[in-house]
Amino acid sequence: MAGNSFGEIFRITTFGESHGTGIGVVIDGCPPGIMVTSDDFDHEMSRRRPGTGAFDTPRKEEDDVEILSGLFEGRSTGAPIALFIKNKDARAKSYDYMKDLFRPGHGDYTYYKKYGHYDYRGAGRYSARETAARVAAGVIAGKIISRADMVVTAYTIEIGGVGIKTKDLSVIMDNPLCCPDMQMYKEMQNALAAAKKNNDSLGGIIEVVAKGCPPGLGEPVFDKLSADLAKAVMSIGAVKGIEIGAGFNAARLKGSENNDPVIPGGFASNNAGGILAGISNGDDIILRAAVKPIPSIGMDQATIDKKGNPISVRAEGRFDVTAIPRVIPVIEAMVRITLADHYLRSVITEKYRELMDH
Amino acid sequence: MAGNSFGEIFRITTFGESHGTGIGVVIDGCPPGIMVTSDDFDHEMSRRRPGTGAFDTPRKEEDDVEILSGLFEGRSTGAPIALFIKNKDARAKSYDYMKDLFRPGHGDYTYYKKYGHYDYRGAGRYSARETAARVAAGVIAGKIISRADMVVTAYTIEIGGVGIKTKDLSVIMDNPLCCPDMQMYKEMQNALAAAKKNNDSLGGIIEVVAKGCPPGLGEPVFDKLSADLAKAVMSIGAVKGIEIGAGFNAARLKGSENNDPVIPGGFASNNAGGILAGISNGDDIILRAAVKPIPSIGMDQATIDKKGNPISVRAEGRFDVTAIPRVIPVIEAMVRITLADHYLRSVITEKYRELMDH
Amino acid sequence: MAGNSFGEIFRITTFGESHGTGIGVVIDGCPPGIMVTSDDFDHEMSRRRPGTGAFDTPRKEEDDVEILSGLFEGRSTGAPIALFIKNKDARAKSYDYMKDLFRPGHGDYTYYKKYGHYDYRGAGRYSARETAARVAAGVIAGKIISRADMVVTAYTIEIGGVGIKTKDLSVIMDNPLCCPDMQMYKEMQNALAAAKKNNDSLGGIIEVVAKGCPPGLGEPVFDKLSADLAKAVMSIGAVKGIEIGAGFNAARLKGSENNDPVIPGGFASNNAGGILAGISNGDDIILRAAVKPIPSIGMDQATIDKKGNPISVRAEGRFDVTAIPRVIPVIEAMVRITLADHYLRSVITEKYRELMDH
Amino acid sequence: MAGNSFGEIFRITTFGESHGTGIGVVIDGCPPGIMVTSDDFDHEMSRRRPGTGAFDTPRKEEDDVEILSGLFEGRSTGAPIALFIKNKDARAKSYDYMKDLFRPGHGDYTYYKKYGHYDYRGAGRYSARETAARVAAGVIAGKIISRADMVVTAYTIEIGGVGIKTKDLSVIMDNPLCCPDMQMYKEMQNALAAAKKNNDSLGGIIEVVAKGCPPGLGEPVFDKLSADLAKAVMSIGAVKGIEIGAGFNAARLKGSENNDPVIPGGFASNNAGGILAGISNGDDIILRAAVKPIPSIGMDQATIDKKGNPISVRAEGRFDVTAIPRVIPVIEAMVRITLADHYLRSVITEKYRELMDH
Repeated sequence: MAGNSFGEIFRITTFGESHGTGIGVVIDGCPPGIMVTSDDFDHEMSRRRPGTGAFDTPRKEEDDVEILSGLFEGRSTGAPIALFIKNKDARAKSYDYMKDLFRPGHGDYTYYKKYGHYDYRGAGRYSARETAARVAAGVIAGKIISRADMVVTAYTIEIGGVGIKTKDLSVIMDNPLCCPDMQMYKEMQNALAAAKKNNDSLGGIIEVVAKGCPPGLGEPVFDKLSADLAKAVMSIGAVKGIEIGAGFNAARLKGSENNDPVIPGGFASNNAGGILAGISNGDDIILRAAVKPIPSIGMDQATIDKKGNPISVRAEGRFDVTAIPRVIPVIEAMVRITLADHYLRSVITEKYRELMDH
Repeated sequence: MAGNSFGEIFRITTFGESHGTGIGVVIDGCPPGIMVTSDDFDHEMSRRRPGTGAFDTPRKEEDDVEILSGLFEGRSTGAPIALFIKNKDARAKSYDYMKDLFRPGHGDYTYYKKYGHYDYRGAGRYSARETAARVAAGVIAGKIISRADMVVTAYTIEIGGVGIKTKDLSVIMDNPLCCPDMQMYKEMQNALAAAKKNNDSLGGIIEVVAKGCPPGLGEPVFDKLSADLAKAVMSIGAVKGIEIGAGFNAARLKGSENNDPVIPGGFASNNAGGILAGISNGDDIILRAAVKPIPSIGMDQATIDKKGNPISVRAEGRFDVTAIPRVIPVIEAMVRITLADHYLRSVITEKYRELMDH
Repeated sequence: MAGNSFGEIFRITTFGESHGTGIGVVIDGCPPGIMVTSDDFDHEMSRRRPGTGAFDTPRKEEDDVEILSGLFEGRSTGAPIALFIKNKDARAKSYDYMKDLFRPGHGDYTYYKKYGHYDYRGAGRYSARETAARVAAGVIAGKIISRADMVVTAYTIEIGGVGIKTKDLSVIMDNPLCCPDMQMYKEMQNALAAAKKNNDSLGGIIEVVAKGCPPGLGEPVFDKLSADLAKAVMSIGAVKGIEIGAGFNAARLKGSENNDPVIPGGFASNNAGGILAGISNGDDIILRAAVKPIPSIGMDQATIDKKGNPISVRAEGRFDVTAIPRVIPVIEAMVRITLADHYLRSVITEKYRELMDH
Repeated sequence: MAGNSFGEIFRITTFGESHGTGIGVVIDGCPPGIMVTSDDFDHEMSRRRPGTGAFDTPRKEEDDVEILSGLFEGRSTGAPIALFIKNKDARAKSYDYMKDLFRPGHGDYTYYKKYGHYDYRGAGRYSARETAARVAAGVIAGKIISRADMVVTAYTIEIGGVGIKTKDLSVIMDNPLCCPDMQMYKEMQNALAAAKKNNDSLGGIIEVVAKGCPPGLGEPVFDKLSADLAKAVMSIGAVKGIEIGAGFNAARLKGSENNDPVIPGGFASNNAGGILAGISNGDDIILRAAVKPIPSIGMDQATIDKKGNPISVRAEGRFDVTAIPRVIPVIEAMVRITLADHYLRSVITEKYRELMDH
């Protein structure tokens, strides 16, 4: 009810805030028998960490995931898996300047209106730090879907208006932006450098492809796979749009163009983005998310203080030029979690079919 | 779990299929004291009916909403409100041609893969007819949010690539496409006429504005207002993309451009689309949905039959050139339902604040 | 949230009130392929009907179950099954005498306190009539569990303090009280006759046995099978107590007496009532429910009116001497629904085990 | 779905196992502004600890509650409160004797059947240790209901068949059994001494009274306050029965005896146990729970090993003679949690009434 849970069968509940003790997640509904160690989380956690991009302000934020429950002899038991990540680098002082005003583009204003207060120390519960718990849960989700040979990959296709021209997924780990076009990656870096020089920030577009999804994931009506993916991705603070397959471009195609012809073994095209009538069709699932530029920028911006008086604010301390590299692992995590949930939900339908034949 | 419910506090569960007895919805969590009569549904139900556009195949589908429960002396009591709409125009014969094949762009293939069967009589549960129940529930939701002076309006801003150039909401009821630009409405009609001549179909983009939303709607983390709106709108079969405020364009703006300056009483711009950090900020909520072209078209399309053999199919019987006019009231309904749910959820936070001050 | 739903996977939502249009239920999560016809409901519905006991006030309340959705060619499809039972015998006049006062032992007082009003026409939503929808849903649940060879039987073991001395389940359909001891049945009838003569009413104890339950039904911690059965049975208005297996008597046994020795193939005794640590152990599930006497009696009782003034009330119109015969099919229905839900939930665990071995 | 959560608005999710890192709980939906410190938990946690009774095997199990999230400047913020209790006294060796067999009366058998394995180290997830998390959550729930002047007290009314004859709640903290009759307390101690001498164990009956509950808590139909209390209490492993108010005795009363006459300001008697038609009536809520004797006893008991061979088992290491003193704070916690949840749910109905009058 209070919105801290996601998923039906594979259900995560996150807790914790920036500048508190730490961030955590309880995963309920994880199948037993899955091998998990603390080290499994390191790679994904380091990808989500801020300050790893070439133009990011470096800071040390070691995100060791502590496993509080749910394992026996190194494997999941079916009991809830609780994961916890201690906060380490909590320099609250950097935030003093914004104690009594609303930073433009942040949740300060809306939280103040909703709750009568807000956490000026880096946003508290609505800090991007909360996504660390999602990335940790996404590692477990990834183990589940990989059993069914599903692989989720996200990458940057546009930053600050600079888009890719070719798509070679084999190079995305060769550059910090996870860009599949090394040529345009350089252009993106130029755009970021220019933005940094101007104390400004950039957004971009992330594409996600999920390969190996079996047909049949997703429920009719409200819990369509597409609907749950939309919610999952839109629940990331920086995301302002999502599209599946041809997406907004589908609105410009004719029916004869947009329909994917069915051929033996699958489809001749993939405008559907792998989802037909809300249910996976066995083709690659493809979605794109629009990420807004980071609102904290090093130039003066007009805002008001808590009393309603106009005032100017300029971000101090550390901030990145773009959120894209950090959002990529979070989007991957949310897509994995959504697929794991629907994969496990599809179990019930499958069993129903067996019962029916019985 | 089976995906037929939506909402937490204001919770709807739809049932029924095309070509069955009818379509219905149970609304649980409706406040008592709301005046409701059968006539209240007529206007919205008639808007959703197919065959009302200039280029639509006319057919009679009177959607009278029967109130099965939840009222006493004309007012809601707080008990579940069940609404039922009988199916009347069930000419199943038109669907015989597609009994053993998968129509491109429809759910036939995915339902067959998921369930081992599918309802060839106009799609059954995954028919657009299911949305009649949503529109009926949306009428009740509309009554709730109108108490808080919220007004939701959807309109067409693009069809077949033809977009509006001006936006005058006062004219949207003067044309069947709900287009706010009478000049471009004519262009859209031309595009539809051309598509109809070619036995093809068109999609488009619908924009929704919700005026009068108080700040504070939406929960942190997963149940952000933006996330729930995304799910609500993406759960409509024809929708392939959704964006809020500047949306995909926000990805191309700089932080200094995209941030909405806070001014006394609100914001100087609305790139946020009325939602900051997932919570309404008091400004207009603005979202856009990409609607794909109707997959049923009157020309030959490649597909396979159930045995996997290539075959050609051409839609017979009635079909529209575009779904846009029918999708508009459904989107409005889903946005109203989402707002009603979050408005009632905000009650709890408000009460918590009173308890706190107590 | 508003409390009109029960179950997680096999989820029912009831709607409707006495003296409204009718009573209904939506069943979400029913497996496809189950044969259902309207006639399937007749037997159970007639058992729940008032006025069928020897000492009951006869009234005609034909409860025909109309199937509104969820079937195709006579079988469930996996879509929600909506069932509706029209109200026929709505003689609202009988209730005029109680319009402005609170009947002792009824919900009038608490509903008035909660909602500021109550439905004086036979209780509205809190009428026992609501249970008709549960019985209808229980018929579908019964079809599911019977596939797994589970059989649920309820019977009377005590009325007005008169308890059974032998237990022969083969005779329970031979008497209207479903008493498994024909000798004591006569005593019970005598007790009922005496109560009727005094314009009074009697309660009793119903025992339920569920045979054929596989081990493994129930979840750890909160959704123990025992906990969900307790909720299911306690959600019936007239029930004031529930015990499983040895129940309250277990509190008087020593550990060495109460423990059921494990033997090859099962257990040497069944004090556990078929449930160990909240999970079915393969033995018969046995529970007992205490049913209070019907509060409507034909003698003067002290109460107050809405203004708080003392007043006397005496039930007019129809009322039964005991609710026992009507509660029996309702308890059976709730136990079947709970078992169906947990049976379908166990599917997930089973599938998890297959995944683990995979 | 996996059964580790309880409550709708005030929702707890427990995690952790005996002999793992620890036990914890996430509380979602806690109102902001509540003062909480680690010390607040000490009293209740110490009551739940084993080995505190006169006849208990002493062992050190300091249950310090660590607050992982949800507080800012000492008060709840509305974000999830995560609490964690480290396991300290994990002498796994004591459990070796039972590694390959099923202890009678424990969950070993059912867990093995359900999951294909079980945690022989003190039961893992189904250990009574899990209730430590409930008691911690109950402390927060207690703070919420105390704002509305609700007070929950549990006490022993029967042990091993020895029942109280008087009821003086002022003495329950003067004896380790929380018995309100000091005279019969001594008899209970004698019974426990005799059982201990025989290496046997005893059960008993716990009564709970909740004073100060406002009328109107509870939802109609399935989420009756009585139904949710039944589930809450039955979800405690050792409980085999629950009754409310007159409970099983109500089944033996006549309607004229059982009905509580309504008088100005309340009721002349309380056979209803404070709940009418599932909703609190403003009177004391009274319930009783039957607690079975502890299954681990120091005498030989017949069972089978995993291969199905008959074998004898005798509990080794530490075990108590009765669970009663430890179950009392757990029952109190579950009742407080249920009341807090329904109290916060009643907020919505209240607000609805304001909206209606508006």
